[in-house]
Amino acid sequence: MTTPIRYLTGITTSGTPHLGNYVGAMRPTVQASRRAGTENFYFLADYHSLIKCDDPQRIQRSTLEIAATWLAVGLDPDKVFFYRQSDIPGIPELTWLLTCVTGKGLLNRAHAYKAAVDKNTAAGTDPDADVTAGLFMYPVLMAADILLFKANKVPVGRDQVQHIEMARDMASSFNHLYGEHLVLPEAEVDDNVALLPGLDGRKMSKSYDNVIALFAPREQMRKQIFSIVTDSRAPGEPKETEGSALYQIFRAFASDDEAAALKKAFADGIAWSDAKQAVFERIDRELAPMREKYDHYMAHPGEIEQILQAGGAKARERATPYMAQLREAVGLRNLSSQAGTGRKQKASKSSLPAFKQYREADGKFYFKLAAADGKVLLQSKGFDSPKEAGQLIARLRAEPSAVAAEPMLEPLDAQAAAGAISALQELTADPN
Amino acid sequence: MTTPIRYLTGITTSGTPHLGNYVGAMRPTVQASRRAGTENFYFLADYHSLIKCDDPQRIQRSTLEIAATWLAVGLDPDKVFFYRQSDIPGIPELTWLLTCVTGKGLLNRAHAYKAAVDKNTAAGTDPDADVTAGLFMYPVLMAADILLFKANKVPVGRDQVQHIEMARDMASSFNHLYGEHLVLPEAEVDDNVALLPGLDGRKMSKSYDNVIALFAPREQMRKQIFSIVTDSRAPGEPKETEGSALYQIFRAFASDDEAAALKKAFADGIAWSDAKQAVFERIDRELAPMREKYDHYMAHPGEIEQILQAGGAKARERATPYMAQLREAVGLRNLSSQAGTGRKQKASKSSLPAFKQYREADGKFYFKLAAADGKVLLQSKGFDSPKEAGQLIARLRAEPSAVAAEPMLEPLDAQAAAGAISALQELTADPN
Repeated sequence: MTTPIRYLTGITTSGTPHLGNYVGAMRPTVQASRRAGTENFYFLADYHSLIKCDDPQRIQRSTLEIAATWLAVGLDPDKVFFYRQSDIPGIPELTWLLTCVTGKGLLNRAHAYKAAVDKNTAAGTDPDADVTAGLFMYPVLMAADILLFKANKVPVGRDQVQHIEMARDMASSFNHLYGEHLVLPEAEVDDNVALLPGLDGRKMSKSYDNVIALFAPREQMRKQIFSIVTDSRAPGEPKETEGSALYQIFRAFASDDEAAALKKAFADGIAWSDAKQAVFERIDRELAPMREKYDHYMAHPGEIEQILQAGGAKARERATPYMAQLREAVGLRNLSSQAGTGRKQKASKSSLPAFKQYREADGKFYFKLAAADGKVLLQSKGFDSPKEAGQLIARLRAEPSAVAAEPMLEPLDAQAAAGAISALQELTADPN
Repeated sequence: MTTPIRYLTGITTSGTPHLGNYVGAMRPTVQASRRAGTENFYFLADYHSLIKCDDPQRIQRSTLEIAATWLAVGLDPDKVFFYRQSDIPGIPELTWLLTCVTGKGLLNRAHAYKAAVDKNTAAGTDPDADVTAGLFMYPVLMAADILLFKANKVPVGRDQVQHIEMARDMASSFNHLYGEHLVLPEAEVDDNVALLPGLDGRKMSKSYDNVIALFAPREQMRKQIFSIVTDSRAPGEPKETEGSALYQIFRAFASDDEAAALKKAFADGIAWSDAKQAVFERIDRELAPMREKYDHYMAHPGEIEQILQAGGAKARERATPYMAQLREAVGLRNLSSQAGTGRKQKASKSSLPAFKQYREADGKFYFKLAAADGKVLLQSKGFDSPKEAGQLIARLRAEPSAVAAEPMLEPLDAQAAAGAISALQELTADPN
């Protein structure tokens, strides 16, 4: 059984997706989510949005728009993990655990924070003027997002690589103190990501106010495409594709043949208005069925809420037992397993939990861990041989916290996992 | 109905309680918990312990010892809120919400952080050398501890007053941005707190290694008391109570008459060994019944675990609906209530939730808020008059988030509270 590679992507819920987000991020990401041998985590980073946006309406609206966009573009919530960050209580909790193992100096060196300090210093104000603790702590929250789901790969732009390195540093510090619990993630930078030009020819970006909305009504999108800046060549004059924002936008949607045909039309002197109409039609052909889905979701926000709640539950099934393991590691533990006042207490054999192995009608070998009162603390799935079952028992005795993530055990909730871990420790501590 | 004053006290779970903790903090605190017109919150600050302690065993052990001590000293978990910080997911979540409204400059000025920086600067090292983000962020976690339970009064030593002021600052920033949701706490400094001297006459403190363990076995306590430093006056020589650590420790346990009697014995030249025996016997008289309880709890950690789990559930009953209100305030919302794509959608009257008022057999007036499908979203308690019921309905329509903390409504869990708030907003947004 090979472990799948886990990819994780979050989008901050403070804006409305535009054509550049679609071409550069959402379309390739949704395609990538269908790769075999991978698990894919997509989340709406609403805790992150609080760092830069204090308008609750906008956060709510953006959360809805971004979720509707992911779904319209084709993300299949049954095949991936699709959730809202704020539905996962383990994320702020792990943020605190990581905060305690992170040197403040590491955070001082984060680019985003340093940029704010440099700007203040240049303006002659206090270096931390208008810098919130949220901006400063953002790399720790991001590390928790990644580490809680044991993501191996985090696709990011080159400017975000440092944050992944910081997450690795935090994971290493944690593992150094508490054992190998956290998985060190890697940044995956794709330098071939299509950068779409905006209306004015610069990179399409909200901060340049040059974006084409992704799912605006059809007529509005047509108007926006018609407002792309072109040169003044008249109909009949040959036109250059090189440096033409209109052509580059078309290229992001067209096949090679379609691109070659438009290139020829440019050379043949197509009128700008005809070229724009062709670009609009090509883009609309790809987007129209998605826009229909998007409009449906936006008109039925309750459906999105349901999808996100189901996605949150699915993500918590992973996160909660893992958090139980991490809590156990740092000392946030169920106290029941604590031995007495330092005067060594010897548990009588009969009061200890015990493993029981057995064979079921399906021919497979099973085991369970039962407390002295008969309560089942752990239940395995079926093994082909008793040896395999025995090996897992040995592993669990050696490393009780492994119960949280062991695929051959029936899933546990956090409390059950904590109880099972305590019981295993009790067994292990028993000298008999 | 007057609102009770809410007191809140936390103890970091990294040490073992000593006699100084008992006299200076635990004994007066337990007495204070019995005041009428107050609600009292006591918590085991295990998230805080992670800042300075990376030994999981020690944290688990200390958590057990401190909980057992509180209970042995007489805290009644049925009458107060007694919980483990890490059992309240709202605490790390609120920590993040507050992080986003806190200026980094505020945290730069915290005494504990500044002391670490000063020490590094004096040593010629990097100012943030060995400073963790945990130390830096500790005031934010502490603010969340306080604000999540709307504590009005936080009894602290003079050195902690700044942290309460910082919690006030954070609450003000939050309220300024999002409305009056958080209650501004006040520090309560008692300068008359008994400061017990330690074995060497300096203030009893773990850092001076001069403590008398609170619940060590009886003989061990006797030995410790006999090792209190005294002067060399022989039996028969008159002795001073002024400046005598032995006398001061006795004073913290004795009645005025008992104190006067020992003072006279000092003047009459009591031998130090006899004086020490008298002090030991007096202290043991107060502690022996508590020690018995302590030993019982330490031998039965499962009982403490149960008490803390019940206390956690009781605390979450307060915290969870309040967190739902705060999440709503910042924009972490149920999306179902979102209106469509900006093209105004008019909910038909019949699809809206509605208030229904009625009278029960008990003669009282009730109301409920029911969704279009009949599902009850809110249920009031009984009012003496229909006018009172109507006033609360009006208040809820005006301020939907008030559902979370309204005592005249049946309690809601987080999800139900969020649903009710959304429904109220839908009602309010409806132009009809």
